[in-house]
Amino acid sequence: MTDLPESMQALLQKHDGYSGRAEGPMIEDASEYLEFATIPTPKPGKGQVLIKLRTASVNPSDLHFIKGEYGQPRIKGNPAGFEGCGDVVAAGEGAEALIGQRVAFVVAMGCSGAWAEYATTQALNCIPLQPAVSDEDGAAQIVNPLTAMAMVDIARKDGDCFVISAGTSQLAKLMIALGRDLGLKTIVFVRRADAVEATRALGASEVLVTSDEDVIGQFKTLCKSYKPRVFLDCVSDQMSEQIFVAMPNMARWISYGKLVAEAPALTQMGQLVFMGKRVEGFWLTRWMMETPPADQLKVVQEVQTRFADGRWKTDVSARLKLADVVSGLGAATGIPGGKVMITP
Amino acid sequence: MTDLPESMQALLQKHDGYSGRAEGPMIEDASEYLEFATIPTPKPGKGQVLIKLRTASVNPSDLHFIKGEYGQPRIKGNPAGFEGCGDVVAAGEGAEALIGQRVAFVVAMGCSGAWAEYATTQALNCIPLQPAVSDEDGAAQIVNPLTAMAMVDIARKDGDCFVISAGTSQLAKLMIALGRDLGLKTIVFVRRADAVEATRALGASEVLVTSDEDVIGQFKTLCKSYKPRVFLDCVSDQMSEQIFVAMPNMARWISYGKLVAEAPALTQMGQLVFMGKRVEGFWLTRWMMETPPADQLKVVQEVQTRFADGRWKTDVSARLKLADVVSGLGAATGIPGGKVMITP
Repeated sequence: MTDLPESMQALLQKHDGYSGRAEGPMIEDASEYLEFATIPTPKPGKGQVLIKLRTASVNPSDLHFIKGEYGQPRIKGNPAGFEGCGDVVAAGEGAEALIGQRVAFVVAMGCSGAWAEYATTQALNCIPLQPAVSDEDGAAQIVNPLTAMAMVDIARKDGDCFVISAGTSQLAKLMIALGRDLGLKTIVFVRRADAVEATRALGASEVLVTSDEDVIGQFKTLCKSYKPRVFLDCVSDQMSEQIFVAMPNMARWISYGKLVAEAPALTQMGQLVFMGKRVEGFWLTRWMMETPPADQLKVVQEVQTRFADGRWKTDVSARLKLADVVSGLGAATGIPGGKVMITP
Repeated sequence: MTDLPESMQALLQKHDGYSGRAEGPMIEDASEYLEFATIPTPKPGKGQVLIKLRTASVNPSDLHFIKGEYGQPRIKGNPAGFEGCGDVVAAGEGAEALIGQRVAFVVAMGCSGAWAEYATTQALNCIPLQPAVSDEDGAAQIVNPLTAMAMVDIARKDGDCFVISAGTSQLAKLMIALGRDLGLKTIVFVRRADAVEATRALGASEVLVTSDEDVIGQFKTLCKSYKPRVFLDCVSDQMSEQIFVAMPNMARWISYGKLVAEAPALTQMGQLVFMGKRVEGFWLTRWMMETPPADQLKVVQEVQTRFADGRWKTDVSARLKLADVVSGLGAATGIPGGKVMITP
């Protein structure tokens, strides 16, 4: 602990609070939201650890967050980044047991973000990693996989088929594979026809292309035999609403993200009344607050086992050094099919 | 049973099935949907009764129904009308015990409607009336009062304050009075400033006028102290959405009707995710299917007691003879503040 540097490089948030907008997680010019700077290395408080970063991941929630449209306020001058993998190099009171361990972590509210040489978080937000799990899998071990496990768990309580949008996203891929392993059927929407085959190969029961003119008609036909009740959706546009409208009685449109600014109109309010349908949301943060720790631990262990034995893996679309994120993040997040990874 | 006439006068539906539209329960020209005609008097089947009508009521659901935008299909040539009060004059096998009783009734699917000299329904859909309950209160004893009881029951499980739209509707009035009696607070939206005083007098904690420019600002302020979680809404327009958006964490927008054709846009999908809000519906028909008969009976008895002892009453805005409904229904339903009643 004595050889820790007094300062570090980090990507700092340029704004406070919320933007009041809801544009979606697209970034053209990251310099609007982030600056690369040298700041004092943070110190872990009571129950917290200091982590020397190996790899951080870029989730849609990070992009929503730096744009000021996520569920917690920005703090100007604080490093961005919710999730990563690194080595615990120092600890506050009560967290000493983690020192020396390689961990997957998410940054707790009020701590110092993951897009930096060093991050702080609560010890409770760290998961020690088995050697078989790579740094990149470790850096994307919590947000997406836990969301996938939790949402598929919601879906399986409501029938044997569920619907997924944005089927080429990392989270969708995890849910498709998990659904297949659990014997559940999935109807998956993708944007591009060239993604159909790979999505089927992952285990999707049916794959539909949103740009097909008759996509809703095709979906209606599938609904007659599959009778899906749950729609796990991160697009939340008018097409999502049309998918929801085509679903049978008691359907639940569960939004967990918003890829576009468009505010979808509820064109069939009567379905909420007569067909018992409803519109709701899923947020991992709430799930963590509401789910007993023992149940969470089971899910965490299952997640790590799936990465360790190769059933799950993280597709990487681009890798950026911390110093290159401000100039390169916009283009990197535009590459489909995988996650952007950040290294010191 | 031998002196029953072979034919009767009735208001017949002019269309089959659904219209595919969702215009709302406004009627300009009832002759588009109804014709006045003489048809054979219906015969009660097994478990059914034949009721000689005293008074039928006009609910928004009747208007949605004849326009083809309700949760069950129209049947061309079948009398319209879901609810009324009358005397049981004949019965099919197993329903004989009701003969001679004055009952409140709703018309079961596949039976002969209430806007006629005679109607049929399942014996289970009849409630024998105490002498203290008037025919007009009897004719509006089931749909609105049970909906009010069921929805306030949903609201009270989710806090001590709830929000009501269209505060001058009969259903809203029942819910306001019921809320007051149960010690619950209500924030009530009305369209006209001249309705504020009467709505307060009924027991509303706060009354807001939707045409006030700053109505959402005023509502936001009230939300800070009242923290309402449930919004019972029969308007379902963009103003409803704005009310929902202004509500605190975990708010539920429960639609039970749609007064206008406008499809409200969900302008803050993020609130579903980060604030745990949701949009759902309420339909009495589903409540009846899902609620154990013993629990329903308790509610039915409580409703009748409230009408018998004067705590609840039905405001009547217009009275029409069966023969005058086709020409007069449009104008009658435009009169605010009460229900339209139909007599033979």
